[in-house]
Amino acid sequence: MDKVKVGVAGFGVIGQRLADGVARQEDMELVGVADVAPTLAVMALAERGMPYDLYAAAPGARETLEAAGIPVTGDFDDLIAQVDIMLDSAPGGIGAKNKAKYEAAGVKAIFQGGEADEVADVFFHGYANYENGVGQDYLKLTSCNTTGLIRTIDALDRAFGIEKVAITIIRRVADPGDTHRGLVDTLQIEPIPNHQAVDLMSIMPHIDATGILVHTPVTHGHIITIVATPKRDVTKEEVLEAFTTHPRIRVVRIADGFDTNTSLFNYGRFLGHPRGDMYEVGLFEETIGFSGDDIMFAINIPQESVVIPETIDGIRAALSMQTDRLDGVAVTNQYLGM
Amino acid sequence: MDKVKVGVAGFGVIGQRLADGVARQEDMELVGVADVAPTLAVMALAERGMPYDLYAAAPGARETLEAAGIPVTGDFDDLIAQVDIMLDSAPGGIGAKNKAKYEAAGVKAIFQGGEADEVADVFFHGYANYENGVGQDYLKLTSCNTTGLIRTIDALDRAFGIEKVAITIIRRVADPGDTHRGLVDTLQIEPIPNHQAVDLMSIMPHIDATGILVHTPVTHGHIITIVATPKRDVTKEEVLEAFTTHPRIRVVRIADGFDTNTSLFNYGRFLGHPRGDMYEVGLFEETIGFSGDDIMFAINIPQESVVIPETIDGIRAALSMQTDRLDGVAVTNQYLGM
Amino acid sequence: MDKVKVGVAGFGVIGQRLADGVARQEDMELVGVADVAPTLAVMALAERGMPYDLYAAAPGARETLEAAGIPVTGDFDDLIAQVDIMLDSAPGGIGAKNKAKYEAAGVKAIFQGGEADEVADVFFHGYANYENGVGQDYLKLTSCNTTGLIRTIDALDRAFGIEKVAITIIRRVADPGDTHRGLVDTLQIEPIPNHQAVDLMSIMPHIDATGILVHTPVTHGHIITIVATPKRDVTKEEVLEAFTTHPRIRVVRIADGFDTNTSLFNYGRFLGHPRGDMYEVGLFEETIGFSGDDIMFAINIPQESVVIPETIDGIRAALSMQTDRLDGVAVTNQYLGM
Amino acid sequence: MDKVKVGVAGFGVIGQRLADGVARQEDMELVGVADVAPTLAVMALAERGMPYDLYAAAPGARETLEAAGIPVTGDFDDLIAQVDIMLDSAPGGIGAKNKAKYEAAGVKAIFQGGEADEVADVFFHGYANYENGVGQDYLKLTSCNTTGLIRTIDALDRAFGIEKVAITIIRRVADPGDTHRGLVDTLQIEPIPNHQAVDLMSIMPHIDATGILVHTPVTHGHIITIVATPKRDVTKEEVLEAFTTHPRIRVVRIADGFDTNTSLFNYGRFLGHPRGDMYEVGLFEETIGFSGDDIMFAINIPQESVVIPETIDGIRAALSMQTDRLDGVAVTNQYLGM
Repeated sequence: MDKVKVGVAGFGVIGQRLADGVARQEDMELVGVADVAPTLAVMALAERGMPYDLYAAAPGARETLEAAGIPVTGDFDDLIAQVDIMLDSAPGGIGAKNKAKYEAAGVKAIFQGGEADEVADVFFHGYANYENGVGQDYLKLTSCNTTGLIRTIDALDRAFGIEKVAITIIRRVADPGDTHRGLVDTLQIEPIPNHQAVDLMSIMPHIDATGILVHTPVTHGHIITIVATPKRDVTKEEVLEAFTTHPRIRVVRIADGFDTNTSLFNYGRFLGHPRGDMYEVGLFEETIGFSGDDIMFAINIPQESVVIPETIDGIRAALSMQTDRLDGVAVTNQYLGM
Repeated sequence: MDKVKVGVAGFGVIGQRLADGVARQEDMELVGVADVAPTLAVMALAERGMPYDLYAAAPGARETLEAAGIPVTGDFDDLIAQVDIMLDSAPGGIGAKNKAKYEAAGVKAIFQGGEADEVADVFFHGYANYENGVGQDYLKLTSCNTTGLIRTIDALDRAFGIEKVAITIIRRVADPGDTHRGLVDTLQIEPIPNHQAVDLMSIMPHIDATGILVHTPVTHGHIITIVATPKRDVTKEEVLEAFTTHPRIRVVRIADGFDTNTSLFNYGRFLGHPRGDMYEVGLFEETIGFSGDDIMFAINIPQESVVIPETIDGIRAALSMQTDRLDGVAVTNQYLGM
Repeated sequence: MDKVKVGVAGFGVIGQRLADGVARQEDMELVGVADVAPTLAVMALAERGMPYDLYAAAPGARETLEAAGIPVTGDFDDLIAQVDIMLDSAPGGIGAKNKAKYEAAGVKAIFQGGEADEVADVFFHGYANYENGVGQDYLKLTSCNTTGLIRTIDALDRAFGIEKVAITIIRRVADPGDTHRGLVDTLQIEPIPNHQAVDLMSIMPHIDATGILVHTPVTHGHIITIVATPKRDVTKEEVLEAFTTHPRIRVVRIADGFDTNTSLFNYGRFLGHPRGDMYEVGLFEETIGFSGDDIMFAINIPQESVVIPETIDGIRAALSMQTDRLDGVAVTNQYLGM
Repeated sequence: MDKVKVGVAGFGVIGQRLADGVARQEDMELVGVADVAPTLAVMALAERGMPYDLYAAAPGARETLEAAGIPVTGDFDDLIAQVDIMLDSAPGGIGAKNKAKYEAAGVKAIFQGGEADEVADVFFHGYANYENGVGQDYLKLTSCNTTGLIRTIDALDRAFGIEKVAITIIRRVADPGDTHRGLVDTLQIEPIPNHQAVDLMSIMPHIDATGILVHTPVTHGHIITIVATPKRDVTKEEVLEAFTTHPRIRVVRIADGFDTNTSLFNYGRFLGHPRGDMYEVGLFEETIGFSGDDIMFAINIPQESVVIPETIDGIRAALSMQTDRLDGVAVTNQYLGM
C-alpha cells in the first residue's frame, strides 16, 4: 500500500514532535515541515543536516530563512500540493487562515487545540470518539490537558461508567524557555468551569464535568486531580486495572521516585527520547482513593508531547486508514512504541 | 476584671503574629515573648525599641542575645512565672519539651500544628469545636491549611449539613525568605489522603474527608479546591450566604483583581496591616459551582497569619473567659477588627 | 511657613508609597492622589476609610470608581489646581500626556523612570546631582536600580573618587502579584550595556560605566554586583566607612541572616513599615572585596520603595525648599526616619 | 591498539552522561556503570534494555536492584577488576571511600568536583593544565562552573594574557527534578570570594581572581558575568576570535533567540542530544564589551553535562593516551562531535 503523505505546518513545540511522530509511522511519509523564521528549532534542524525538508510558510519567509543559512525546499503551496493531509500546528489563529489553502488544494487537515472550534468539522480524541473523525476533512484536537484527562476518564467510563467529574487543574504556566508568559511566586485562579471540563463534555456528552484551574509557575507538565463519580460501586483494583491496561497511561509510583511532574519529564530524558518526549500521561498510583463512592486520583500531563498520538490517530481516522477505533489507535501505538 | 496574662514562646513567623494578636485583645495582657537567638525578627524588635519584652528561652540564649545588642528582660522561667497561659510557637518538637515547664508552673498552654498531637488534651478549632477546649489545660491548634479549610466546611455544615469533602491542596512550599526548603520549577505530589483531610475528620468526625496535596514553588498562600457533598440540595446563593456572613471568610472577586494568592497577600499590605497580615481566608466567588449536587469552590490560605484568631479563641476557651462558642469567637473578632 | 502642596498621579506600586512618604514630611501637605480605576490599592484605600483624598484621573473614571463604592473628591484638574507640584507615577507614557495639564496649570512635576527622558528638564538624583534640580520645573527620577546604584557609587566617589564601574544587575522580573510579566525557571540576559549604566553616566558623566543585566524569576528586590575602579588605593575599612555613614545605605551582614533579597523584604515587614517598605538599599558587608585594586561589592535594591526618598528630594529641589544638596536630603531623611 | 577500559561509579546526573561520553570514544570501552538503588535513571536504563551493564556498588544493593527487576551484572569489585580507570561520580564523600578500593586494585580514578581536594593528586582541567595530569593516578575535576569559566579565561589568556578576573556567578540552585534543595522567589548571596574564583587560581595560579555568587531559583544552567583585565589592549574582534575558535565554547547571539539559559537547554533538546545534553558553554555575543580596558562578557554553563569533555580528557592524561594537551583534547572533541 502506498504510504499516506503528511505535511506539518509550524515547527514549534508541537510541530517538531508531530514531525517525529509521523516519521515513525511506517505507513506514513513525512513530506516536510513548514515554518516562517529561523527559530531555534529551525536552526537546530539545519545543524542536524535537515532530516526533514523545510518549506517557507509565508511570503518572504524563504528569503529570511536562506539569509540565516537555512536550506529551504519550497514554498507552503509546494508542500500542500504533495500531501494527503496537513497537521497544522501553527500559532493559534494562523491555522484558520491556512485552512483556505488546504480547501483550495483539496487537502485534509488536523488542527491543534489553539484554533477556534469552527475551524473543524469534528472535535476529536483518538480514544474517546475516533469514529466521529472517520472520513472527515477537518479535525481539531483537544488541548493537551483535555487530551490526557479524557484518556483517563474514557478508560474508567468504558470499564464501569462515569456519571460526573470534578477536576482541579494545576497548570504549568509556560513551556521551558518560553519568555512570553510566566508567573513569579504566584498562583493564578480562573472562574469555574475551566474550558477543559467544557471540552470534555463536548467529546463525552454523557458525562457532567466541571472544574477549577490554577496556573502555577512551573514548566514541566500539568498535574490534574480528579473526583469521578462511577455508575456503580468499584474497587481500587478495578480502577487501577483500567489505568494499567491503557497503552497511553503510565502508572507510576511515588515510592519509586515519581513524586513530581519533573520526575516524568526527566524520565523521558533518561529514556533517551528525543527532547525527552513522553507520550503517556503519568498516573500517580498512590493518589488513587475514594471520597465516599467517588474515585479520586491525580495525573501528570506532559504538555509538549501528549497530543502527538491522538493527532496521528486523527490522520488514520480522517484518511480512513483504519475505520475502527481500537484498530486505529493500536497502529499508532505500535509505531510510537507505546 | 483583671486581664488574662499571656506569654509567647518562639518569636518566628507565627510567634510575632500571636504577640500582635494578643496585644490587640483588650482583655488580655501580653507579658512578653521568648526566643533563643538574634534572628531577624528579634533584631527588628530591638530596632523598634522593644515594644514587647523579650525573654531568653534557652540556657545561654541571654548571653547570645545581649552580645548582639538585644535587651533581655529575663529567662524563660521568669516569663512562665508571670502568665496564665503560654502560646507555644517554638519550632516543632520544642513545644513538647517546653510542656514540662508549663506543667511544673501550673500554666496552661496552646501549641501549634507542628507539634505532635500527644502534646495536647484537645485538638482545637475556634469555630468548629470551641466547646471541647473550654477549661482544658493543653490545646493544639490545627495547621494553617486545616484551620482555614475547616472555617469554610464548618460554615457550610452548620448551614445545611455536609456529608463528605474531597480537597486538593495546592500548597505554598515555603514562607517568604525561608531558604531551608524550596522547590524550583516542580510540582511535588503526596499520597492520598493528605493530613489536612485526616485532621479535619478529627475535628469534625461526622464528615468523611479525603484529598490530594501538591506542593508548588510559591510563598504567598495556599490555594485549596474543595468538592463538598451537602446533605440536601442547595443553591449557589445559599452557599455564598454561608460564606459572606462568616467573619473569618473574605469573599473576593476575581473580576476585581483578586485572581491570585498574592493579590490577597498584597491586599493585606495595602491595608497597612503589620507585615501585611491577613487573618481571613479568601474565598474566590467566581469559583463557586456545582458538580451534580456537589458544591465546588476554592479558597486562599494566608499561611503566616490564618491561625492567629483561632489561637486566641483557644485562650478564651482554655481559661473559660467565654464558655460559649459564638461568644468566644465574637470577642476575638471584635478586637482583631474582623 | 506654609506647607508645600503636593499631589500624586497614579496610586500604584510607586504612587502609594510616594503618598505615604509625602504625608510624613512635616513641611509638605499631601492634597490627594489620583487614579482611574478601583484597583486593589484603591479598594484598600476605601476600606481604610480614605486616609488620602482620591481624584478621578481620567474622563469617566469618577463614575467607574463611584460605582465600585469608592468615594471620589474631584477630578484630576481639581487636584492639579490645588497643588504646587505633582508627583507623576502613572504608567509609562501617561506622564508625558499629563505634562500638558501641568504646564497649563503652571504646576511643577516630577516623573518616574518609566517616562521618556524628554518629559523632563533634568534627570535627577537627590544625592548625586541635587543642585541640577534646584528651581527646575520638570524633573525625572532615575529608575529603581539606578537610584540605588548611584547612592553607593556616589558615596565612594565623594570619598575617594571613582573612575569606572562594571555592574551586573540580577534583576527581579516582576513585583509581587504582578501577573502581566514573569519568567519561569529561566534567566534572561540583555546586550551590554544595560540602561542603568548609561543612566549612571548621564547623572555622573565623569564616570565610565557599563554592565550586563540578567532577569531572574523573583519579586523581592534586585541584587547588583559592582566592580568599581577607585582613583587611588583604598582599604576595605575606607569602603565600609563610606557606606556605613550614608543614611540611605543599610550595611547588613550575611552572618546575621541577611543572606537574601527577601531577608531585607521581610525585615521591612518585621519593622512594621507599611507594606514592609524599605527605603535604604541593602549592602552585604561580607561581599566587599578587591579584584586587584578594584573594589567589588553587592547591593540589594528594594524596587518598590527605593525611589521615594530621592523623589521627595526632588520636591525640595524643584521648589527651592532647600537649595543645598546636603540640607535637602537631610530634611527628607529626618522625616522618613532614616 | 587495545581500547582503554573504563568504569563509572554513580549513575546520577553526571554518571549517566559520563557513561554516554565514554561510550562515544572509539578508543575506550565502557565496561559498566555502578549504582546502589533503583533510581529513576537506573529504572530507565532497564526499560531501555540495559545498554550499559550495571554493577551493584554497595553491600545489599544487588538484592535491592534485583528486587526492583533491574538486571545486575556483578558487584563493585567485579567492575573495578576489569577496568584501567574509574570515573567516580558518586555523591560527594563516597568517592573518597571508594578510593581505597581503587588503590587496592591498582586502578586509576577521576573524581568530580564534589569530592574534597585531598582525594586527588592533581586538580585538573583539560584545556588549562592537561600536562599536570599526564601519568597521574588520581585526578579531581573542577566543578561545573569552574570548568566552563576556565575554558573562556584560558582562551583569552592564551590569546593575549589575562591578569585578573572578577566574576559574578548567577547560579542555578538545583537540577531539574531535584526536590532536595531549592529556593522560592529569593536570591541568596554568599561572601566574597566564591570557591570558583579560588579554584580558578588553583588551576591558573598566575591569574588573580575573585567574585560573588548569587543562587537563583532556576534549574537550566548557570550564567556568569566576567570582568577580565587583559595584559595588553585588545579589540572586541580579538576577544570574539578567541572564543569562536574554541571547540568547547559555543558563541550564540541574543538576536537569534539565545537570550536565556533555557534557550541553550532547549537547543540541546532540539538537536536530539540524549537528555538534551550540551557540552559547550554558551557565550552570548552581544554581552562582550569593555569597562575601560577590561573585557566584560557573559557565559552560560550547562551544569549537567559541561564537565564530561574535561573528564574524558582526564582519562587521556592519566593513562598517557595522549601526552600533549592539544592532542588529547582534540581526540575527545572528535569523538564527542564538538
